Amino acid sequence: MIYSFAERVGQIKSSVIREILKVTEQPGVISFAGGLPAPEMFPLEEMKEALGRVLDGGNASALQYGTTEGYLPLREYLTAAMEKKGIATRPAEILITNGSQQALDLLAKLFIDPGDRVVVESPSYLGAIQVFRSYQAQFVSVPTDDGGIELAALEKALEENRPKLIYITPTFKNPTGETMSLERRRQVAELLEKYQVPLIEDDPYGELRYQGESIPPLKAFDKGNRIIYLSTFSKTVAPGLRLGWIVTGPELMAKLVLAKQGTDLHTGTLVQQAVHYYLTHYDVTGHIQAIRDEYGRRRNTMLEAMDRRFPRGASWTEPEGGMFLWVTLPQQLKTDLLLKEAVAEKVAYVPGEAFFAQGGGHNCLRLNFSNSLPSQIEEGIERLAGLLTRYL
Amino acid sequence: MIYSFAERVGQIKSSVIREILKVTEQPGVISFAGGLPAPEMFPLEEMKEALGRVLDGGNASALQYGTTEGYLPLREYLTAAMEKKGIATRPAEILITNGSQQALDLLAKLFIDPGDRVVVESPSYLGAIQVFRSYQAQFVSVPTDDGGIELAALEKALEENRPKLIYITPTFKNPTGETMSLERRRQVAELLEKYQVPLIEDDPYGELRYQGESIPPLKAFDKGNRIIYLSTFSKTVAPGLRLGWIVTGPELMAKLVLAKQGTDLHTGTLVQQAVHYYLTHYDVTGHIQAIRDEYGRRRNTMLEAMDRRFPRGASWTEPEGGMFLWVTLPQQLKTDLLLKEAVAEKVAYVPGEAFFAQGGGHNCLRLNFSNSLPSQIEEGIERLAGLLTRYL
Repeated sequence: MIYSFAERVGQIKSSVIREILKVTEQPGVISFAGGLPAPEMFPLEEMKEALGRVLDGGNASALQYGTTEGYLPLREYLTAAMEKKGIATRPAEILITNGSQQALDLLAKLFIDPGDRVVVESPSYLGAIQVFRSYQAQFVSVPTDDGGIELAALEKALEENRPKLIYITPTFKNPTGETMSLERRRQVAELLEKYQVPLIEDDPYGELRYQGESIPPLKAFDKGNRIIYLSTFSKTVAPGLRLGWIVTGPELMAKLVLAKQGTDLHTGTLVQQAVHYYLTHYDVTGHIQAIRDEYGRRRNTMLEAMDRRFPRGASWTEPEGGMFLWVTLPQQLKTDLLLKEAVAEKVAYVPGEAFFAQGGGHNCLRLNFSNSLPSQIEEGIERLAGLLTRYL
Repeated sequence: MIYSFAERVGQIKSSVIREILKVTEQPGVISFAGGLPAPEMFPLEEMKEALGRVLDGGNASALQYGTTEGYLPLREYLTAAMEKKGIATRPAEILITNGSQQALDLLAKLFIDPGDRVVVESPSYLGAIQVFRSYQAQFVSVPTDDGGIELAALEKALEENRPKLIYITPTFKNPTGETMSLERRRQVAELLEKYQVPLIEDDPYGELRYQGESIPPLKAFDKGNRIIYLSTFSKTVAPGLRLGWIVTGPELMAKLVLAKQGTDLHTGTLVQQAVHYYLTHYDVTGHIQAIRDEYGRRRNTMLEAMDRRFPRGASWTEPEGGMFLWVTLPQQLKTDLLLKEAVAEKVAYVPGEAFFAQGGGHNCLRLNFSNSLPSQIEEGIERLAGLLTRYL
């Protein structure tokens, strides 16, 4: 039948990544396009044991309805984990979500009326752009450099636009892998005070550092509960569990709980209890270190292969962590057009434009290094270099 | 800090049930208030085994990101299950959701602009009322009788209001337990053709029939993909898994997939694979029959106790299935005021007003019989009868 949809549906479009992932499922394609963790690193045996333990002894609570806020022992665990990162919180100020993506949706639902302005980095995580767009937000894009969002441009954006929200991924940002400096974090926190605007800090990659000094999350510099901190177990345990969390103050938490209740009642009880068991009964620090070692190796393999093979004219970021790096080609090249040729050569990436809320990045592309084996990385970079050499 | 929320937040209020459940957590209270299945009936051992099998042999796909549509073998299983109910569909027309509640949220997101009209039964499921309200819908309430929604009133509502959506729970409705007759189903399907309006059929309780003849879902009478069918594993397997599904045509499915992608990427992979394993390796028919036998016993226990003890002036439904029955008291009694006294007597229910989108039901109350043991049901009804006898 012909449906009469809501106005916002005009804004809900298929993500470029989604369409690309379909193309790259062709056999033989080495895909640097997705944002998947390495399945070789999943704690399969440990999760199996944890699930078994949780269901032992007639523990029906693992299969029953649960509270909207989330499993209390897991929120207690996260309170201590946040403390170690310099974030003082309480279990009552943590909401368990179905991954960070749901956190973004709940926050957009609570904050965004059609036409409201949201400050995003340029480039930014495309899943966040999609969500804000689906609530009919207007974007104010602020450029970034290798020390994070540009401060003067951010202040100008706040001054001129009075946005509802700022959305930032300060650490190993998707798509560039870049990290906001310590000094910049202090300055951004001060700007939030001056302009009294809430900021969403999306931190899925914070644990994935392969070199350099650790920097506290932006939230650690928060002075008045202005920063809403999001993170996830998708990169440290496994994404198929769909477990993330939000840290914020009591006023916003009360609204978030109501929004989540209407959205899906609560996050799965079994998965929450099993992940809590896993976190408290296994060497999680060792597990995360193993992920760091492996991803660091893959990053190095990719960077070294690019150094050897990429033609002059291409430049790229050298991130200290995360899952992505970002390649910039000369202005005259269009990475979306180039992608067809790349797929014909059996290698894939995400064209840069997808990560810009208001255009830009047509000559850029994102490469993922966490989901391919080192031998595939070597081979895929060779294929890509061959293609680029024809144009540069 | 002081947040500037979106306009819709004014509509997002704490559910009465949520607040009540807190009160009824006091020790010694026999609660007929919640809508929980009996934890004694959960297939704990089977799920434990299923989860183990799914994680065996290095199956990392169970912990990896999955497709937004849901795990294909589960959608194939559901296609066959739907077929048995008279619903012809295909895996591509089934979306896996985090329980039915998420299905409602996704549909409201796609259909409802502020001020749009939604036809609901009077009374109706309060979780649905909450969701539509959070998208700033206007309600058009249509009365029901023991054969379902009143047809003439429904036609008048469609004629006068041109609603965006109709929302109905035709089988063992929450809160009354009543079921729409076969003839009424045919007539409603015809009205949908005449007025070209989509209808959401919410069917969480369809499998829970304890007496009488089975009736096909409303969707079985659908002529032009006008009926959007929702169901869930919450009542037949376990609610803590958060697994539901939507059946609809290809045009709407395309939009639903995009909306779900922005909302939380996809439903948990592990849980989908484990439930699929459970459904295909165990005697699920026998398991559901055991639930039917037990819930039927509890329903009978409640009805017999009410027959024996409730004073003249109270009347109630005698549903052939589901988890609830509905008590009507004389007009002068207010069940929300009475609740405090009931809790003092260590028994709880949900006051009727919660289930009316536009007021009504102040002299009614909902009783759940699935979550209490028969001995608790006897005792709880005795306490409630004692209270009612003081007023009747």
